[in-house]
Formats: sequence, C-alpha cells, structure tokens
Amino acid sequence: MSSRDAELLISVDRNGPASMQAQLERQLRDAIRGGMLRAGSEVPSTRDLARDLGISRPPVMEAYAQLAAEGYLALRRSAAPRVADTAPGHRAQDLPPESITTLVFRYDFRPGSPDLSSFPSARWLKAAEAALKTMTPDDFGYGQRYGVLPLRRALADYLGRVRGVGADPRQILITSGFEQARALMARALKRRGVTELAVEDPGYSDREVWLAAGLKLLPIGVDEYGIDVAALGKSRAQAVLLTPAHQSPTGVVMSGERRLALANWLREKNAIALEDDYDAEFRYDRAPIGALQGSAPDHVVYAGTTSKTLAPALRLGWMVAPPDLLLAFEDEMRLMDCGRGRLEQFTLAHFIISGDYDRHLRKMRALYRDRREALLAVIAAELPEVEISGISAGLHATVRFPRRLNEAAIHENANKRGMGLSFLRGHYLGTAPHESTLLLNYASMPESALRTALRTLAAIIADS
Amino acid sequence: MSSRDAELLISVDRNGPASMQAQLERQLRDAIRGGMLRAGSEVPSTRDLARDLGISRPPVMEAYAQLAAEGYLALRRSAAPRVADTAPGHRAQDLPPESITTLVFRYDFRPGSPDLSSFPSARWLKAAEAALKTMTPDDFGYGQRYGVLPLRRALADYLGRVRGVGADPRQILITSGFEQARALMARALKRRGVTELAVEDPGYSDREVWLAAGLKLLPIGVDEYGIDVAALGKSRAQAVLLTPAHQSPTGVVMSGERRLALANWLREKNAIALEDDYDAEFRYDRAPIGALQGSAPDHVVYAGTTSKTLAPALRLGWMVAPPDLLLAFEDEMRLMDCGRGRLEQFTLAHFIISGDYDRHLRKMRALYRDRREALLAVIAAELPEVEISGISAGLHATVRFPRRLNEAAIHENANKRGMGLSFLRGHYLGTAPHESTLLLNYASMPESALRTALRTLAAIIADS
Repeated sequence: MSSRDAELLISVDRNGPASMQAQLERQLRDAIRGGMLRAGSEVPSTRDLARDLGISRPPVMEAYAQLAAEGYLALRRSAAPRVADTAPGHRAQDLPPESITTLVFRYDFRPGSPDLSSFPSARWLKAAEAALKTMTPDDFGYGQRYGVLPLRRALADYLGRVRGVGADPRQILITSGFEQARALMARALKRRGVTELAVEDPGYSDREVWLAAGLKLLPIGVDEYGIDVAALGKSRAQAVLLTPAHQSPTGVVMSGERRLALANWLREKNAIALEDDYDAEFRYDRAPIGALQGSAPDHVVYAGTTSKTLAPALRLGWMVAPPDLLLAFEDEMRLMDCGRGRLEQFTLAHFIISGDYDRHLRKMRALYRDRREALLAVIAAELPEVEISGISAGLHATVRFPRRLNEAAIHENANKRGMGLSFLRGHYLGTAPHESTLLLNYASMPESALRTALRTLAAIIADS
Repeated sequence: MSSRDAELLISVDRNGPASMQAQLERQLRDAIRGGMLRAGSEVPSTRDLARDLGISRPPVMEAYAQLAAEGYLALRRSAAPRVADTAPGHRAQDLPPESITTLVFRYDFRPGSPDLSSFPSARWLKAAEAALKTMTPDDFGYGQRYGVLPLRRALADYLGRVRGVGADPRQILITSGFEQARALMARALKRRGVTELAVEDPGYSDREVWLAAGLKLLPIGVDEYGIDVAALGKSRAQAVLLTPAHQSPTGVVMSGERRLALANWLREKNAIALEDDYDAEFRYDRAPIGALQGSAPDHVVYAGTTSKTLAPALRLGWMVAPPDLLLAFEDEMRLMDCGRGRLEQFTLAHFIISGDYDRHLRKMRALYRDRREALLAVIAAELPEVEISGISAGLHATVRFPRRLNEAAIHENANKRGMGLSFLRGHYLGTAPHESTLLLNYASMPESALRTALRTLAAIIADS
C-alpha cells in the first residue's frame, strides 16, 4: 500500500493538557504495544497524518522521530514509514497452535480433490468482467439471497440437459457447496420430524453434521449394484443420503433396477433422498446415467457443486429442492447467513452460458481419462494381484487386494514419504471386509507424478 | 453457448429393439416433456451428438427433423438447434409464487444500503487478476476453511490500524457477512450455556436467529451516550449485542464513560459482547472512535463487513474471536459449510494490501459527506421543525419530529410513490416514545435524487 492512502485510528485534542507531539507519541506507542499496529505494517507519512488530523507537520515529525528512537517505528528515506520489526511488547496470544495449518501431501491419493492446477483462470476472469458489466446497481445489494436468477436459470438448463434433473429455477438454491447443502438438509429433516437417516456403508466418514442435528445414522450395505434397497426398505429410515451416479467411495454406479426400487420406496414411504451428485460430470467409457432426481423429483433433494468440475476453492454449489421442502430450506438458509457472493454467482452464470463450463469439462475429462489409463498401466505392472473397480466415472479407483495388508504400517510409511492414502476400511460404519481396499485418486496428479507415486506405493506395500 | 460444446444426457443401445432414430426421439421428447430440457435451451448440433454417441449422423438428423415437426425443437440454418419455445408439456410446478421476487424501491430511505452504483469494478477485477496469479495449486483446494491466511493477515493489520482492534490473524475468521457472524454467535452462546442476551432498544428489528437458538432477548435502553450500562448491570444478561461506534439505528456514538463501564461489566460478569462494527469506516466531522474490542479483547467478539464499504453483494465479512471462543466458532462453522470462496478472499486481500480499499473508502466518504450536506440543507428548508441526530458517522440520519405523525398513512403514501421508509418505532422491542422519528438513509441515492425524494417526502408528511 502506498502510505499516501494508509489510514490510522488516531486523534488529537487541541484543548488537551498534553502537546500534540506527546499525544501522538502516546497513542502510537500504545497501539504498537497493544498489538493493534503490527510489526512491519505501514503507518501514514507525516504529511498525510498531519493533513488528516488538520494540524501542522512538525509535531508529527517529532513524534515519529521519537518513536523511531525508541524502536517502535522504522523510518527510511523514500520508503513508507512502518512499525519496526523489533517493536517491543507484542501481546502473545494464548491461541490453539494448529488452527491455521493445513496438511499438504506431495503425492495425495486420497479421494476428493480434482486437479488443482487446471483452474481456468483467464476464462473465469473474462466471465467475471462480463458479469460485472451486466450487473445493475440493485444486483450489488442484499437481494436474491437464495441465488441470483441468471445462475438459477443457467443451472436449470444445464442440469436438465446434462444430468436429467427437472427443475424450475425457483427450486434451485445456490449453496457454498455440498457441505452447506448437507447442513441445510440435516436441519430441514429435523424440522420434518425425521429421526433416522440411512447412509451408504461404506460411505462418507464425516458424520458430524448429522449427529449434531440429532439424527441417528442407519448404515445400509452397498454392493456392485449400489445401495441395498431391500435392506433400506426393512429399516426404520425416513430419509437416505446417496451417491447414485458414482458411489462414494466404492465408485459403484447404481443399477436401473435399484434406482426403480429406490424411487418406489421413496414414494411409498413418503421419504426423502439427498442425492450428492458430486463428480458425475466425469464419465469415461460408459453411457451417462441421469440423476435420481429425474425419477422421483418430489422426493429427491439434489446437490451439485463446482468443487470437482472447477475447484473446491470456489465454494459454489447448488441444491434442487422438491417444492414442498423449498420453504424449509429457505428458512434454514436465512438462519445461517445472507447467501453466497453475488459476483461469483453472476460469473458462474456467464461461464456456463458462454459454453466455457462445458468446454472445460471436456478438456478435464480427456485429461483425467489419460491419467486413469496411466494408473491402470502402472497397477497392471506393479500390483498384478489387485482387482480394480469404480473407474468408469469419477476421479478415483477402488483397488481391492486379495488379502489383508498391514494397513497401519503402509499408512505410516506412505505419510513419511509425503504420500496421503485412504483405505476403504475407514469408510465403514459397520464391519469392513477382511481384505484390504485402497482408494486411489488419479485425477489430482500429473501423469509423471502419478507413475512415480504409484511405483513408490507398490514398493511400500511390498515392504510392509 | 456454441452448440459445439453443449452436452446432453442421452444414450443409445446398439443392440436394443428400437432403431437409433427412435431411441433418440423418445429420449429427447421425454426430456423436453418432463422439463429437463427447457424451452429455448440449446441442444447439441447433429454432428456433435452423432460424434458423442459414436454413431452416424443420419439417424440424429432424422430424429431432430421429426421432433421439429412435432414442435419440440426449433431448427434454423446457421444457428444452434434449440428446444422450441412452443414445446408442449412443460411441467407446472407447485411453487411458492414470491420466493424469487425482491422489493425494489425507486427512492429507498431505509437504512442499511450503501451506494450500490459505486462498486469499484475495474479495481476489483485487477485485484482478482493479481490474486489468481499468486494463488498456488493448493490454494484452489479445500484448505484454509476459516479464511485464507493473506486476508487474515491483511485484516489484522487493517483492523489494528483503522479500528484499534488487537488481533492475531488466527483469531480472525472470514464470514459471509454479519448475518453469519450472528448465526455463529447465537450457536456459540447456546453452547456456552447463555440463555439471556441483552440487545439495544431500539435496535435490530430482525431477531429470528437469536430466538431460533433459544435465547431470550432482554431489551436495554439507549440514550444519547449509548446503551444504558447501569440497566444492563441490573439485568440477568450474560451477553450483549452492540453497535458502539454508531448505534443501529439511532446513530448515537457510545461515550468513553459508558465504554469503560461496559468493559468493566464484561470482565466482572465474564460476559460476552458481540460488537457489530457495521459502518464505522464512515465518519465525517468527529474524532474516530476505536472499536470496543480494543478495550476488552477477551470478552468482545468483533464483527466487520464489506457490505457497507464495498457492496452487500460481496457477502464477505470477518469476525475477531477471543482466544477462548475461537474453537467454538470454528466448530460451529464446520457444521455450516466449508468456508467462504477463496478467490474473493485472495482478491480482497490484494485489494486491501494495494491500498485500493483505503482509497475507495476516502472517495466514498467524500461522496457521502456531500450527500449528507444535501440532506441537511433540504431538511432545514422543508422540515424545519425536526431535530436531526446520528449524522457524525454512518450512512443515515435520525430525524425526530416534535409530534406523533400518522406513520401508517405516510408509509402507505410513500410506498405508493415507490419510496421505502423506516420509522424508528418498528425498531423497539419495548415501548417506543410517543413522538415520531424517521430514519433517513442519505448514502444510497445520488444528490439530485436525494433532493427530489426529500421534497416528495416533506409533501407526503404535510398531506398525511
């Protein structure tokens, strides 16, 4: 920042007993001691501060010189004055030490992340520029809290076209991603009187939100056709959390028969499904599968996201609510905040309408297909005993070993080499099978890194 | 979108009993009838669809021609094929009719909105471009959910410098604005066992979030020195919601004496204050007042926002949590979602560090000061009997009449002329004074509109 524009919370009392210089010195010293002015941060030039306070410059210069002598300020010719790095008395905070750090692996096989280096920055900026040009003054206000209309319209078209979702734009609520859709769902289910929620087993290992809402989780098995709908029918569940297009984490695609049975169960029981359509845009060599929502629109809450298609950092997703749940979701949203940023919503609308979204998906699909082929080739060479599944879609493969591995040792050795791993065992609520299964994200690493990492992994497994 | 890139959820079965053309026709017809493909939306060209399905082009062309004849598709030379606007059978949804509409007034005097036509689009885009250039691949992932570090650092410097807030960057959580800070606070208070929350009276009329969290609200009076701390001390409140820098809505600035008494009460009672510092950046002719947080950092949760300084549409704010409340806020945030969008956070960090934020504030302050002068001039001429207060800071004036107006009639007449009004009466939890007081936002209208609107308002008042 140019110091010309730096502002500072300081004031002088012309009628006070202390001189201007003394008043300034005391206030600046206290601000630095108290940690309000932090080491290295800029302060206004003496000229600007004098102007802002409406006083002459000399007392300000004197005060700065004094504070520099005391070690509080660093003054240098032709550079903005700053708080000295050596300034005494910063308040040590009693803070949890790790609240900011995030674990970053060199090679991360854990499912969930797309390629993070492929964000289409230039096209996104173009869309943002176009969006800002079309936004009216009212669009910069508090309105459209559940989502801006151009984005809801663009998504209604897109989801109908690509995912077989039937929705009026008013049924589409813009979220900050699946995590918010899940939080809204947990609260809306509670409001509806639901106490037992069926979940796929194996499934999501993160269950905190459901439990915090007071819901009991009922694990329902998953086989090669998807969730066991017969078992679901025998349970006391009034709602179910599902990943039909590409089961998380096994990668199984729900069969047409199961889908039909599930839609029947939803109607007969007047139950609700939360469909997490997290990575369905990535399919490689099978026919596309429409969303479950299309089969039972009055009973399915559909949730989609840009986290896999663009970047998790965008925090921009959507949910499609059945008409009779819409008001409950809107009520719960109002209790959380005032909606997602409108600028990025208008930007995403432009990005979709311009065709950039579809173009980006095509490009990424080709890239991920190549990475998947590389994964299959290395695994065939290095781990010939495994059985691979879940690779017709999504961003990770399910790799089943014919025996139980020493999972703890492999985990530990992998972490030591900067490698993140995820075994399927951790995703079970009930009892996991005896054999070991690894989940391998092939999307987030360039091909060469992927090959290296897989060979390292094979060596770790052989040694453990 | 160029149809070259439009994708479509459709598949064909080469071994099925029906011809390719019949399969395509049926699927497209169903998708349009069911509302999945909406009127006016693009479908892929016959060339692209044939390529995507791996079949020859003629059956696709035949299917399109048939659907065009049936009124489902609109085909035109050298234009992308689309679903016809006349396509039959769109599913009528049983939707709440008003869930999308937002009330927009031509002249809006209601407090809360800054000037919406002054968003610095060009500088914001520059900051976004700079941000995207500095973001590493990891920055595009799921990390930094409580806020990106560069923004937390920039805010720690800024808040210390301009608002006298003492905070380590780890104490700063990035929110989607005050509404989210309030929701987090409500839940954190509940977790702490707080049952009674003192609120300023008059104060915020929106109390839903507090009541939903099961908190009882205790109205505490506000006089010319701010909230009545003696009354607060006699109450059973364990926490208090406050706007010390510019009381919402009266515009009163809390006196130094009251501030000291409040800080003492907080420490003695081990109570918590939520300080909503919503528009303190705008001060005109009084000495700047630091945030209450600086006086009692272990007992004050400080909340700030870009809603008044940049635009409500940004949905970007921050809270500063005392160390021993930090983990509770982080826990509650995790139960809501996965944090704010990282791109706009990096953008705001650049915007602040470059000095653009301070420059924008200076510019807006000059603009608002001029509008305030215009307001004062017209009121002196048109409504000489009123008493004006709360104008040393913020974006609205408090205009007290020496008598009780016919508020309902004035409201109605104003709304008929497209004018939004807010009387102070609606902001009381307890009993409002007999006399009428109007809150007049002077920031959101250009000077000429402001003058016209004020004259119209004076006429309405005279007639009612």
